[in-house]
Amino acid sequence: MKRIALGVQYVGTAWNGYQKQPARDTVQDQLEIALEKFACTPVATTCAGRTDAGVHAIEQVVHFDTDLSRAMQSWVRGVNAFLPDSIVVRWAAEVPPDAQGNEFHARFSARSRTYRYVLYNHPNPSALLADRAGWVFRPLDVERMREGARHLIGTHDFSSFRASGCQARSPVKDMHEVSVERHGDLIVFTVRASAFLHHMVRNIVGALIYVGQGRNEPDWIEHVLNSRDRDAAAPTFMPDGLYLAKIEYDPKWGLPQEEGAPLPWL
Amino acid sequence: MKRIALGVQYVGTAWNGYQKQPARDTVQDQLEIALEKFACTPVATTCAGRTDAGVHAIEQVVHFDTDLSRAMQSWVRGVNAFLPDSIVVRWAAEVPPDAQGNEFHARFSARSRTYRYVLYNHPNPSALLADRAGWVFRPLDVERMREGARHLIGTHDFSSFRASGCQARSPVKDMHEVSVERHGDLIVFTVRASAFLHHMVRNIVGALIYVGQGRNEPDWIEHVLNSRDRDAAAPTFMPDGLYLAKIEYDPKWGLPQEEGAPLPWL
Repeated sequence: MKRIALGVQYVGTAWNGYQKQPARDTVQDQLEIALEKFACTPVATTCAGRTDAGVHAIEQVVHFDTDLSRAMQSWVRGVNAFLPDSIVVRWAAEVPPDAQGNEFHARFSARSRTYRYVLYNHPNPSALLADRAGWVFRPLDVERMREGARHLIGTHDFSSFRASGCQARSPVKDMHEVSVERHGDLIVFTVRASAFLHHMVRNIVGALIYVGQGRNEPDWIEHVLNSRDRDAAAPTFMPDGLYLAKIEYDPKWGLPQEEGAPLPWL
Repeated sequence: MKRIALGVQYVGTAWNGYQKQPARDTVQDQLEIALEKFACTPVATTCAGRTDAGVHAIEQVVHFDTDLSRAMQSWVRGVNAFLPDSIVVRWAAEVPPDAQGNEFHARFSARSRTYRYVLYNHPNPSALLADRAGWVFRPLDVERMREGARHLIGTHDFSSFRASGCQARSPVKDMHEVSVERHGDLIVFTVRASAFLHHMVRNIVGALIYVGQGRNEPDWIEHVLNSRDRDAAAPTFMPDGLYLAKIEYDPKWGLPQEEGAPLPWL
């Protein structure tokens, strides 16, 4: 038996989220159907981070165990041949146990997760960005949003940004980065943390938009965080612009993760 | 009666081309259905350039005549309310006749058309660019493609790049620009001419890819052009990466055309 890791990119618009469902209409279902066709035997996969319906991934990481001996590029090309165009395996790597005999695990070996949120800030919507970016027609002040974002850095109880159905054991997470960059009419939020609560990125983006519109002061973010009350924050923002961008692992695992996204602004 | 021009952006993937069809499954059908709902009367439109199935537009230009008095922003918001997300009216402008009494015409007043072709040049396909870019897995040499493209500039008989069903009166067109730019793994071709034959951009891109791969020398483009024979060129390249980018008009018409695309690399 050997453990194989895959880098998987997808557009989530057509799929009912990542995690498998009886209707087999999710990204994981499509991936496992393709893996089974290629391997001629069922393959059970574990991912680094589940994404909701409509959310995309630049690089999701998945692992599975197999007895099959195939060149890694065969896993990539062979599985892609059975996948719809909106889901692509970008790389495959065999991951042996480390020097202490610990097995690599897509979820538990992850040190941090990075999400990007792409927002189109223009009076009219864009057809080219439909399903690929959120849209705010009112002008947004990036400097105010940056100021608000600073309050989120560090170890905090993120209950105010947590969906009611969230199953995480603890609402306390380490937030490493919340950056806000403007590229013309696009605003890209980059959020990196040890782990995320359900809807946490979309709830943070929704709150920062309130600040960027001038509806609330940047300090209001600190107030929301301290209140530990979901009702204190803004509504959950639309999933369309959310991308799971990167899962960070110890370099000892030697994963061939990709440096950049295919789109220069991601 | 007054003449109104619209700037229309669309993703062509879901539509059976631009021009209306009995099945009403085209961009023009969807636009005229939305205009009729907004205006409460049928509205016949004329476009600057018809696009094929799967081809997108950053800015198509359309005109129609109407008796209705509505603020221009109402035409934008009102018609968008009845359009699917993949088609968006970006601007509307009333265009009065010029000083000589000539009427503006979306097609006949156009001085030039600009198309962009976006190519993803990477060993593996990208899910995020599926339907939005062509894909070539072999490395492409941009400098060789630029050298080949130079032969296309000027007034030429473009019969070698013309689809068999093309209904244009003459195969002679003025080519103003063929540029090739690399942005990471993306290669963007910009092609600007007085007018285009059917499949002309996709046939030019297909031929330049042969040159970029080293399969043919840059001078081969001149040979293909001079042969005036469709069989001398490369196969028609996939529509996925083709964008109608800009229609150029005399500034006297005062159209509020947009400077840039919503995507920084377009």
